[in-house]
Amino acid sequence: MSGGRHLTKGSPKPALSDDGVLRLFSMRFCPYAHRAHLVLNAKNIPYHTIFINLTEKPEWLTEFSPLGKVPALQLPKEEGNPSLIESVIIAEYLDEKYPEVPLFPKDPLKKAQDKILIERFSSVTSATFKVFHADTEAAPDSLTEISKGLDIFEKELSARGTPYFGGDKPGMLDYMIWPWFERTAMLKYLLPEKYQLDKKRFSKLVAWRDLMVNDPAVKGHYLDGETYAKFAKARRENVHDFDMLV
Amino acid sequence: MSGGRHLTKGSPKPALSDDGVLRLFSMRFCPYAHRAHLVLNAKNIPYHTIFINLTEKPEWLTEFSPLGKVPALQLPKEEGNPSLIESVIIAEYLDEKYPEVPLFPKDPLKKAQDKILIERFSSVTSATFKVFHADTEAAPDSLTEISKGLDIFEKELSARGTPYFGGDKPGMLDYMIWPWFERTAMLKYLLPEKYQLDKKRFSKLVAWRDLMVNDPAVKGHYLDGETYAKFAKARRENVHDFDMLV
Repeated sequence: MSGGRHLTKGSPKPALSDDGVLRLFSMRFCPYAHRAHLVLNAKNIPYHTIFINLTEKPEWLTEFSPLGKVPALQLPKEEGNPSLIESVIIAEYLDEKYPEVPLFPKDPLKKAQDKILIERFSSVTSATFKVFHADTEAAPDSLTEISKGLDIFEKELSARGTPYFGGDKPGMLDYMIWPWFERTAMLKYLLPEKYQLDKKRFSKLVAWRDLMVNDPAVKGHYLDGETYAKFAKARRENVHDFDMLV
Repeated sequence: MSGGRHLTKGSPKPALSDDGVLRLFSMRFCPYAHRAHLVLNAKNIPYHTIFINLTEKPEWLTEFSPLGKVPALQLPKEEGNPSLIESVIIAEYLDEKYPEVPLFPKDPLKKAQDKILIERFSSVTSATFKVFHADTEAAPDSLTEISKGLDIFEKELSARGTPYFGGDKPGMLDYMIWPWFERTAMLKYLLPEKYQLDKKRFSKLVAWRDLMVNDPAVKGHYLDGETYAKFAKARRENVHDFDMLV
């Protein structure tokens, strides 16, 4: 909808077309927005993407996202064209509204347990953030924290005995944590010592990662490690090259 | 189950009875655990309460709550007697598992919108925490932040045109934000200048608060402002008087 370009301060507000198609406000390198892309892709829901420059935000962004964050999902078929925010709330809404391809378990207990794991994954996301964007000195501690966080998921996947957290195919938990795994491929370009997931300690997760890369929903919004690293390196020098892929 | 007393380091692990009744791990003054009490009360679900001393935690707490937090809800009828954590996840689980008294809206959009409001209420909870527990110097800024946060809820309640956020009776949004409103009654005992919610700026919320106090679920776990203030004052002096009501 914005041709891959990130709309910025001064950009005119994109007009709502009358096609009734969902509009996702996103940023190409944002892992939280990535979650929404994955769910929409996995459920084969058509949507327009509007990329947003998050350092020079368009003045109208708060009309769709009161806190100026992405993802925000606008629902043009609903009265008043409301928008939703918060990646997990958007994910659960889509799962309830478009039940044809269910992603959360149907059983309330199993669903709650998966949501707790999504919540607990935040120890990994916060440590990852430090490695990607903060100075390299913080890296060793953060890498230890990431590994400790991943132990939980390795153990869980082993206990489930299935290739994916969702069973024989990816479910909501798989998609909610995937954006950070896709981004681990940038670590070997960013850190002084080449970092890779320990293939012994995380044998299940490594096998899972190799499967996930080939999932159609994942492929539909995939970037390689070198590209993420290029964006992250520029960002460390305070250059936000949102449009580097355009 | 613990007779109102908070179990502590060295306390024996309370044995699981064979009555199949839910067990809520709680702390009498914790607003997040309060949410779980309200939902269980509103839905008339029987449960045992196990109060936990959060400064000197029992060694076995992590068996039920991996991060050592409350609330945790154990489900003795489920295989393996699993426990759930995170107040909103517990709330949503209970709403799905015990649908007789529904608390979230059925419509996925309305439900998502209520969940976004619960999430946005965190600006109020974090500012409230500062007023209750940090030094009084931070109070004026925090009070401004609380009022700005509450503006959203005043406006929302006005737009809905109903006495409660849930309509003619309290729903999940009402119960998820209530614990912090109940605690505002302590501010007049804590702050140098007596603080009250501005009756003009928050006319809908004040009327709502007066209704909520009389709700049976609220009454079932209610404490007055003076009691909260006593606990908070002691805590400011690093005395955690968990058992002050026993």
